[in-house]
Amino acid sequence: MEGFSFSTEVRVRFAETDAQGIAHHASFLVWFEVARVAYLERHAGGYQSIRDGGIEALTTEVHVRYHRAASFDDRLTVWARCVDLRGARFRYEYAVERGGELVADGYTSHATVDRETYRPTRVPAWLADAVAAAEIEP
Amino acid sequence: MEGFSFSTEVRVRFAETDAQGIAHHASFLVWFEVARVAYLERHAGGYQSIRDGGIEALTTEVHVRYHRAASFDDRLTVWARCVDLRGARFRYEYAVERGGELVADGYTSHATVDRETYRPTRVPAWLADAVAAAEIEP
Amino acid sequence: MEGFSFSTEVRVRFAETDAQGIAHHASFLVWFEVARVAYLERHAGGYQSIRDGGIEALTTEVHVRYHRAASFDDRLTVWARCVDLRGARFRYEYAVERGGELVADGYTSHATVDRETYRPTRVPAWLADAVAAAEIEP
Amino acid sequence: MEGFSFSTEVRVRFAETDAQGIAHHASFLVWFEVARVAYLERHAGGYQSIRDGGIEALTTEVHVRYHRAASFDDRLTVWARCVDLRGARFRYEYAVERGGELVADGYTSHATVDRETYRPTRVPAWLADAVAAAEIEP
Repeated sequence: MEGFSFSTEVRVRFAETDAQGIAHHASFLVWFEVARVAYLERHAGGYQSIRDGGIEALTTEVHVRYHRAASFDDRLTVWARCVDLRGARFRYEYAVERGGELVADGYTSHATVDRETYRPTRVPAWLADAVAAAEIEP
Repeated sequence: MEGFSFSTEVRVRFAETDAQGIAHHASFLVWFEVARVAYLERHAGGYQSIRDGGIEALTTEVHVRYHRAASFDDRLTVWARCVDLRGARFRYEYAVERGGELVADGYTSHATVDRETYRPTRVPAWLADAVAAAEIEP
Repeated sequence: MEGFSFSTEVRVRFAETDAQGIAHHASFLVWFEVARVAYLERHAGGYQSIRDGGIEALTTEVHVRYHRAASFDDRLTVWARCVDLRGARFRYEYAVERGGELVADGYTSHATVDRETYRPTRVPAWLADAVAAAEIEP
Repeated sequence: MEGFSFSTEVRVRFAETDAQGIAHHASFLVWFEVARVAYLERHAGGYQSIRDGGIEALTTEVHVRYHRAASFDDRLTVWARCVDLRGARFRYEYAVERGGELVADGYTSHATVDRETYRPTRVPAWLADAVAAAEIEP
């Protein structure tokens, strides 16, 4: 997928389908989250290590466009990239692909807060550096 | 909530919370759906009657902005209105409120398709009329 | 429902259905939880007040038997009663009913632990008393 | 895990946690289902092929015992075996393991029905044979 260098695989679970016979639209937000977690594991020591550092990343905005239905047992590739990381905010963009076809795309915006006070706190430099390095890679 | 004439109540379930101690962000899409279903029940004989008429409403786009966290057992008011209903497409707008404070807002876009062929099919006139009447009401 | 004096209502959400066209079997555990929460609100000041008291109730066992399928938009009555409350353990029994028909029944077992140490801690006397009083009522 | 010859891996998703900071107890039913689907893919051509054959497998009973909490990002091994397959009924048993420790165990019972009429229908011979062969393997 052009412009993306990271992806992870998910397989549509039966519990994620609905009575339309397709994956429920809210499932895509869960898969986006799975992709963020996998991205952070690859590039920045994992989401848990961020949480262990006393920082929580809240979701402040989500957007998804659905181009094709996904069905039970489909193998989906979820592409993810981190963009616009600055201060206490960052954004991810996603593309969900199945066999070369675009199933959905979207973005999520996040704010980092102190885990105790829930006050905005800057993205730690080590995390910002790790993400910047990841996105410069081809 | 200004501009809205319909709302429904939801209460944050424990299963809808996550390890951040707040409602998971994907839960809001489920609550939007609960509000759409309640809206259609009030104004158009119910979503099931639309499905019984051989029509399925697919979700083609969602957008949510999160302004405040929602916690376990919170009582939330989900305001919903149908906008831009034309041809085989319609859009809902939402505002989630708790004690006069805006918790989240967003929209969802939908396309009506034939339940067998999954081809786009116009929103039935009776449904369009019912929704138009609902939104003209004060 | 014979032997039960408390119930709460749930309505099957579209997100709770699966590609079999019926409510996913895991949804019943969520409805059982909704019933426990409502039960505690009615009889013991609410689950949140128990959590505020530094106690967490872990789920240690669940059992569900499914007698009939539940469908989208079904109105279900979830009957719940607390049984066998002793020491740091208690159990709930449930019956899910729709129009006089038994849809499912089951039980869940729980252990109360200190919220910080996660060590077993006795169910507080005030809670035990409240539950005992509730179950003696006709 | 003694007595099991098949397992699949799941990783606890953030969306599967709750405000107790651990995986919600209903998530285990979803993981059991993931294991059943993986089992059928390995041994019997996949659950979808069974559905394509006009058969639906309903869940008639579930039982889970929780021995340890599972946390976000935990890698869990879900062991599964098919037992008591006869007529239109079969049962699966499960053990969820993390680093050699038993996290949970349980079983699920199922009934095969005709996909159109929802009447009980015998488990097809080819499926029974495939499962029998799988469970005889060491």
